[in-house]
Amino acid sequence: MKIESVEFFYLSMPQVLDIGDGSQDALLVRVRASGGHEGWGECEASPLVSIASLVCPMSHSACKPVQDSVLGQAVETPDDIRRIGDLVRRNSLDLLQADHTLSGIDVALWDLLGRRRGEPVYKLLGYENAHPKLPYASQLFGDTPEQTHAAAKKVAAAGYRAAKFGWGPYGLGTVEADAEQVRAARDGLGKEAKLLVDAGTVWGESVDAAVARLPALMDAGATWLEEPFVSGALESYRELASRCGPSSLKLAAGEGCHNVHMARHLLDYGNVGYIQIDAGRIGGLTPAKAVADWAAAKGVTYVNHTFTSHLALSASIQPYAGLKDDLICEYPVELKPLAVELTKERILPGPDGMIRLPDGPGLAITPDPAAIRKYLVDAEITVNGRVLYRTPRF
Amino acid sequence: MKIESVEFFYLSMPQVLDIGDGSQDALLVRVRASGGHEGWGECEASPLVSIASLVCPMSHSACKPVQDSVLGQAVETPDDIRRIGDLVRRNSLDLLQADHTLSGIDVALWDLLGRRRGEPVYKLLGYENAHPKLPYASQLFGDTPEQTHAAAKKVAAAGYRAAKFGWGPYGLGTVEADAEQVRAARDGLGKEAKLLVDAGTVWGESVDAAVARLPALMDAGATWLEEPFVSGALESYRELASRCGPSSLKLAAGEGCHNVHMARHLLDYGNVGYIQIDAGRIGGLTPAKAVADWAAAKGVTYVNHTFTSHLALSASIQPYAGLKDDLICEYPVELKPLAVELTKERILPGPDGMIRLPDGPGLAITPDPAAIRKYLVDAEITVNGRVLYRTPRF
Repeated sequence: MKIESVEFFYLSMPQVLDIGDGSQDALLVRVRASGGHEGWGECEASPLVSIASLVCPMSHSACKPVQDSVLGQAVETPDDIRRIGDLVRRNSLDLLQADHTLSGIDVALWDLLGRRRGEPVYKLLGYENAHPKLPYASQLFGDTPEQTHAAAKKVAAAGYRAAKFGWGPYGLGTVEADAEQVRAARDGLGKEAKLLVDAGTVWGESVDAAVARLPALMDAGATWLEEPFVSGALESYRELASRCGPSSLKLAAGEGCHNVHMARHLLDYGNVGYIQIDAGRIGGLTPAKAVADWAAAKGVTYVNHTFTSHLALSASIQPYAGLKDDLICEYPVELKPLAVELTKERILPGPDGMIRLPDGPGLAITPDPAAIRKYLVDAEITVNGRVLYRTPRF
Repeated sequence: MKIESVEFFYLSMPQVLDIGDGSQDALLVRVRASGGHEGWGECEASPLVSIASLVCPMSHSACKPVQDSVLGQAVETPDDIRRIGDLVRRNSLDLLQADHTLSGIDVALWDLLGRRRGEPVYKLLGYENAHPKLPYASQLFGDTPEQTHAAAKKVAAAGYRAAKFGWGPYGLGTVEADAEQVRAARDGLGKEAKLLVDAGTVWGESVDAAVARLPALMDAGATWLEEPFVSGALESYRELASRCGPSSLKLAAGEGCHNVHMARHLLDYGNVGYIQIDAGRIGGLTPAKAVADWAAAKGVTYVNHTFTSHLALSASIQPYAGLKDDLICEYPVELKPLAVELTKERILPGPDGMIRLPDGPGLAITPDPAAIRKYLVDAEITVNGRVLYRTPRF
């Protein structure tokens, strides 16, 4: 197959709110290849900027638009997808946004190849089986402990055995206010469920601010504290990890990683206990699988990061589908209608509370044309009178 | 002063060639503040993508357009500039391109504040004096050793006591072909001049490929080998640094760093001997100065990275202007007419072969309106019928 087109579809809710909810817009990618084949993927984040980096004029030999390294390339094997990713990284070395842009394309290429061969992506990635995952209900902290308590009760009643609360007021107020939020979450969930807390990089690199929150997290038996710091603050991670001592609390991080190296640094120098990879940011499934391999070799648990559609959810699980012991899995439960309606198929918890990848070819999740049309944003980029991008008709 | 506008001017040569020459286009930034004050800066790289990230619609609370964290802010002190940078990094956390976009804005803010106070930027950054720097003539390898030899003779005849050759065929062919290029450069320069070699990340993270080139570099008495690997390949850097042994050859890297952390990792874990920072990529002068402080504390030499206009050159030198022993300085000698004509003032080597920062307020380099008009690219970005960006009139 030869790649004939790469189309970016920018979707958005009519109104985007100033909250930490990544499901308010989406950048859907369709790759079409000769013989009438196609594959779908999704990029995180900022659709317009990734569109610009797909089509921008070349600045010099190491700053080319991403599409220049993709269009016309042959795709017959997984190695072809790896080769295309390497080409993008080399030809767009100085184009910072390129890793996010490549992500959706790489995902679409694996979907394309899987559909072409009639095989699920996880098999192409080298796994024999896709093991069931324990979904954690991923949601924002309430504005008050009462709201958090109610939200926790709700997901517990819905059968979730793990839940994550993040962002919102957490980390911005007093240590005691944060402790109340954590206690409210634990109370609402009940004693057995896994409780995860996401600080959303709120403390920058300040270890002291994070250390002050540890006792409440340990008292509540939290499984992890996520992103106390920005991704690059390796010394802060290492120091905080050592402060967790013999407790079962570990650090989780990685969603901000836009290449394999950053993720490896969090493992090798930051001593995180969970490495969370967003396939829509790190450059797609190819680097995500490389991180999963690295983590497995080091005994660190890989976890998907995802907060958008079930297409992105399926993509995010494929890189560690075959790692039986890496059980826990991010599962957003407060998605905006855009993200819910975007796919015809959905990945729902079974009677045992576990989720399973669909067993069809590729990602086995198909975008719904009606939803694309409903949420499609009209965008146009013109340079010196030449239209470089116009929202494709659908 | 209150920031009233941030304008991006995308300039380009009529034709951009597929060569490693970053002076073929430019993104000029003008920040205007109340009271009729203004400052200028420049972003590396890919103008269109940085423009998109300045104005893109918000995706969620941590993925906002860069301008949202800048417009309307007060700027009276250096701490205000630091605060604005922190705000951009927080509000645009998930917008990968944001660090490049912020870079030109941060530079313009320092220029603005310096002009307002009648002080050079290096003084605002905390230095008493700006010491002379030894410019190295920065250029590409020739396609053949003969071309490289001729280029080396030319810069030696022009009085340069240091020269860097990079990119082109280096690292792509055989070890012997690379050795011939290095010998040609040394022969052309003469025995005394400092010879620097830039591999442009050509070996990815392959230590063996780089090790094979060390003997020729050591024989030629090269001062550094630059970017044998991509910025994130810390283990490869550390391993290669140890292979340089007791020779005077050291590793140089850092131009790809888009935040302080990446640069610190190259120092702390990669053991580079020279840290090269592009103020137009790392987020501006604020993080660049933080890296200079870190490097000084660790005994590592800071070097500017720049390959565009003399506005960018002035900006790139300010963060280490006061470090007397960090003598060497990148000085591009093959700039395209766009980059040459862009500024009214230029920084030229003195009779002693050294270059000095101009002593006026701010960056003391003013863009030439005629050049802006001559090279200005007409760009427009529209989303749902709303024009988010249109090239400002000048």
